[in-house]
Amino acid sequence: MHKKITRAAVHHMPKSNYSYGYDNETLHIRVKTKKGEVKRASIRIGDPYIWDAGGCDGGNMNAKGGVWIGGKTYPMRKELETEYFDHWIVEYKPDKKRARYAFILEGEEETILFTEKKVYELDGKEDEKKFCKIEDFYCFPYLNSADVAKPPKWVKDTVWYQIFPDRFCNGDHSIDPVNVEPWGTEPTGDNFMGGDLQGVINKLDYLSDLGITGLYFCPIFNATSNHRYDTIDYLQIDPRLGDKEVFKKLVKEAHSRGMKIMLDAVFNHLGYFSPQWQDVVKNGINSKYKDWFYINKYPVIDRPLDKLDSDNLNYETFGRTPKMPKLNTENPEVIEHLLKVGRYWVGEMDIDGWRLDVCNEVDHVFWRKFREEVKKIKPEVYIIGEVWHDGLPWLMGDQLDAVMNYPLTEALESFFCTNEIDAEEFKYMVNSIAVSYPMQVNESNFNLLDSHDTPRILTTAKQIKEKVKLAFLFMFTQAGCPCVYYGDEIGMEGNQGMGMEFHRRCMIWDEEKQDKDMFNFIKKLIKLKKDNDEFKLLKNIWVMAESNNNSLIYLKGDIAIIINNNDYEAVMDIPNDFKNREVLDLYNSKKIILREQVKLKPYEFKIIK
Amino acid sequence: MHKKITRAAVHHMPKSNYSYGYDNETLHIRVKTKKGEVKRASIRIGDPYIWDAGGCDGGNMNAKGGVWIGGKTYPMRKELETEYFDHWIVEYKPDKKRARYAFILEGEEETILFTEKKVYELDGKEDEKKFCKIEDFYCFPYLNSADVAKPPKWVKDTVWYQIFPDRFCNGDHSIDPVNVEPWGTEPTGDNFMGGDLQGVINKLDYLSDLGITGLYFCPIFNATSNHRYDTIDYLQIDPRLGDKEVFKKLVKEAHSRGMKIMLDAVFNHLGYFSPQWQDVVKNGINSKYKDWFYINKYPVIDRPLDKLDSDNLNYETFGRTPKMPKLNTENPEVIEHLLKVGRYWVGEMDIDGWRLDVCNEVDHVFWRKFREEVKKIKPEVYIIGEVWHDGLPWLMGDQLDAVMNYPLTEALESFFCTNEIDAEEFKYMVNSIAVSYPMQVNESNFNLLDSHDTPRILTTAKQIKEKVKLAFLFMFTQAGCPCVYYGDEIGMEGNQGMGMEFHRRCMIWDEEKQDKDMFNFIKKLIKLKKDNDEFKLLKNIWVMAESNNNSLIYLKGDIAIIINNNDYEAVMDIPNDFKNREVLDLYNSKKIILREQVKLKPYEFKIIK
Repeated sequence: MHKKITRAAVHHMPKSNYSYGYDNETLHIRVKTKKGEVKRASIRIGDPYIWDAGGCDGGNMNAKGGVWIGGKTYPMRKELETEYFDHWIVEYKPDKKRARYAFILEGEEETILFTEKKVYELDGKEDEKKFCKIEDFYCFPYLNSADVAKPPKWVKDTVWYQIFPDRFCNGDHSIDPVNVEPWGTEPTGDNFMGGDLQGVINKLDYLSDLGITGLYFCPIFNATSNHRYDTIDYLQIDPRLGDKEVFKKLVKEAHSRGMKIMLDAVFNHLGYFSPQWQDVVKNGINSKYKDWFYINKYPVIDRPLDKLDSDNLNYETFGRTPKMPKLNTENPEVIEHLLKVGRYWVGEMDIDGWRLDVCNEVDHVFWRKFREEVKKIKPEVYIIGEVWHDGLPWLMGDQLDAVMNYPLTEALESFFCTNEIDAEEFKYMVNSIAVSYPMQVNESNFNLLDSHDTPRILTTAKQIKEKVKLAFLFMFTQAGCPCVYYGDEIGMEGNQGMGMEFHRRCMIWDEEKQDKDMFNFIKKLIKLKKDNDEFKLLKNIWVMAESNNNSLIYLKGDIAIIINNNDYEAVMDIPNDFKNREVLDLYNSKKIILREQVKLKPYEFKIIK
Repeated sequence: MHKKITRAAVHHMPKSNYSYGYDNETLHIRVKTKKGEVKRASIRIGDPYIWDAGGCDGGNMNAKGGVWIGGKTYPMRKELETEYFDHWIVEYKPDKKRARYAFILEGEEETILFTEKKVYELDGKEDEKKFCKIEDFYCFPYLNSADVAKPPKWVKDTVWYQIFPDRFCNGDHSIDPVNVEPWGTEPTGDNFMGGDLQGVINKLDYLSDLGITGLYFCPIFNATSNHRYDTIDYLQIDPRLGDKEVFKKLVKEAHSRGMKIMLDAVFNHLGYFSPQWQDVVKNGINSKYKDWFYINKYPVIDRPLDKLDSDNLNYETFGRTPKMPKLNTENPEVIEHLLKVGRYWVGEMDIDGWRLDVCNEVDHVFWRKFREEVKKIKPEVYIIGEVWHDGLPWLMGDQLDAVMNYPLTEALESFFCTNEIDAEEFKYMVNSIAVSYPMQVNESNFNLLDSHDTPRILTTAKQIKEKVKLAFLFMFTQAGCPCVYYGDEIGMEGNQGMGMEFHRRCMIWDEEKQDKDMFNFIKKLIKLKKDNDEFKLLKNIWVMAESNNNSLIYLKGDIAIIINNNDYEAVMDIPNDFKNREVLDLYNSKKIILREQVKLKPYEFKIIK
């Protein structure tokens, strides 16, 4: 057995998820070490300008000689573990907002000082000298407020509901699309069902009853298709959905019920039938909009539309879809146009959030400007991005407040719905997400089980409703704000072998066909989330999450969640603090007496306090 | 022996020094692995939107099913090695600017696919399926030009000379400071010697003869102290240095000699005697400038200046120096004032570069704005920051072009001057710097052996001139732009036991007292650097760099540099390609015939081609 600490596995990086301002006074500093090697981790940290007599009072650290004596040692705590690592963290409030630091890692047989440049063995020989080598230490130069990620405070308390506008509710037949089809018709990529904004207004009480406090709308601006990601005009409501008056009413009515409104900003690309792109199609190189796009060759359209070859278009697009020409977000005219849009809906229409479509393919420079402009108008606006992979490059405080937390979706699906992973793997996936972002991001991240871009969760779970419930249960006990995709709460299915567009089916309003049990379950979860601050805690204490096992026990503060994620009955050990006691069964709101073990039916769970 | 690849030691991070746009077409992707474990590394990479029939053409990757078939395998090359790691790199030009990727790492006994989320063993069982798991792959979503770091092209060819204005040359006695002391008087923190801008103009031919192509000035704006880091007015030249007319003349004369001009922007703090701070001192909470600073308590000055307690000031400062109140760079008025300064000297006065003092303690938001504003006026302006530690958070293209490369300084001093490290440690330090930044940053980084903030290199080398020559030699054979601190070229010493301010002594113009041999040495190095593009190459091929040894042989393209960094004669093996051949002795400009070995005197070197 190796007893030395694997140097190559120790990782830290300044100004990243490993070191950031949590608030204007507090630094968070993390380090990871190879699992099982380090017994105890500490940080040696302090102000860079505290030197002994004759030393540094300003710059000239090296020139004037003297010794840095600013560092002190503080314990780090083990934040959590992932598959290959132990993760350590310390919260530190520097007196003068500045810090130089290194890590003291204590292994079985050695203790090392891990600095930015070198690794020193702390062997009792001149260790104090090693602590003074400030030039080797990591640096957090100054905790500037402007650089601290500060998601809006209200987000932590929000439960979202995602609406695909054409498919939620038709409240005004006078504006039905020309080719509107009967509500509930089989969905295709092209057909319209007539959902509209008045329909949403009509259902606000329904949503309020469920406990929803935020509505996230897929695009509502003037566009061609039923999904409206091919914008024609960002400054107009699609007339088939309503107009600005009805939108204003919607915002007002929602706000009066304590609901926030978030819209979908599709700024990566424009629609084929936008006046700007049509001008380019028509006028080619002479179009005044030619620099709004990335054009490789004129004419941009050199054959009938249905003969276009997605592999060899004369212009850049979203994905390989000819109908979505990519916008040149480095063009000052485009920038100003889109910023105007960003400002307009926040400033004039009082929306509370922007969800940025294909956020990851637009340049960071643009998003920084976008953030600055919209936060200037409403500092508490919530900005989230569609980023399916690691979102850190957008989450350091300068661009997004949060991302659509698809990595969590993947973990929840793989464990609860498809049983591709066991409880230990699930724990590591959940923990990995936790350490990949600053804590305040995780506290406000946008969690979801499905969306307009995925199969519905019930379909992923092969129609086993109990599995879906467990996935919802887990999501609702986590920090961040959960989102319910319209219809999930009444047991709607969609996609995978059901036709391409079934995840965007019409909402079922026929109460006979709604799964009321599911509705009541989600409603109860929402209430539990609101009533128990424990579910805002980042920390999951994993009491039982073993390999080759589907059962799971974890604690959130004083609450224990016990889950039998098996298709058979399981007998599970009660966590120590809950054994042989009277506890509160939170889900059923009653006191129960627990012994040493509990017997759970297939997919049964207990939430006890 | 472990034969498995240590998963915990494999490291990659999107949008960092591990993955960035090198230019508008090329991605650089790096991964590091524990030293000696991986025989061969490849990348599996491709366009995210290439799916098999029925698959993804736009979003909805998961919803529509189908399989991603966009990935292909390309070899990575070993870029270099550091103490604990092998570093691998690939240059990749994506067709459509997009890439999803994972690493194929081949060890002694296993091959693994290392993705963002999981590690798969490639064992021949359904490997193709693992290659299709796009949701696990790392992502470089889109290579947007706006996000690519693009240092000015001219920088690679520039040799800088740093001038401390009060101490370089007095060219106009009519503007001498009131208490000017005779040139060459022992320097203190307070005294003035009368160096000025006309003095610099007078010496341009001297500098031109040396081969200098860029002048970096410590602050020249109106200020109180002799170092002028305590600015009074950023928009005025200190009258003891000259006026705007003479500055304009200096810029013109320098430009006509092919020399660039870089000024020092001290935006972290203002001087005690600036009108803004004086207004706060006088009017306290009623001052219109109170929000220009960080004030904890009024009155800001509550006792005689010489009784102020650096530990407990009523306001934030640079370091612990009461005379430098920290500027609030989050205040829009301050921002606009400083941006105006940035624009003015570039736009009106035609300077070519800004060196940003205490850059690391000012917020990133401000620097991004600063970059945008000054580059708008002159896209080829060079922006470097004073960052002594890892500078990556400033170097991803949105803030600085380069930093003062103090980590290289430390390596050069430790190996050549103080012999604290051996050749192998030196190699690892140099290599570590290379992989810590995007390549284009290293190609344009500001390299230096000393500055106004450090002891002079000759003093660090304990007056052993030959050691200094080797340090210069190494620096001049490296990519990046080297800087000579005024007077180093004539063998000036300074600091460490010589009095605090001796590194800022008056330039010696008495030719009798100048070290002409050193001058000619530096002059020859500058010429070698200019004449041989090999010295712009990032790659050092280390032929001999062993532990417990001070000798060094490395290649830059077709050039070999052989260094005996010992105080005794050493016999060294000639690199294979140069053995038993006639080669060019570049330094002495003559052909020589080499056998198997070469005998070098103490601190002797050979540069052969």
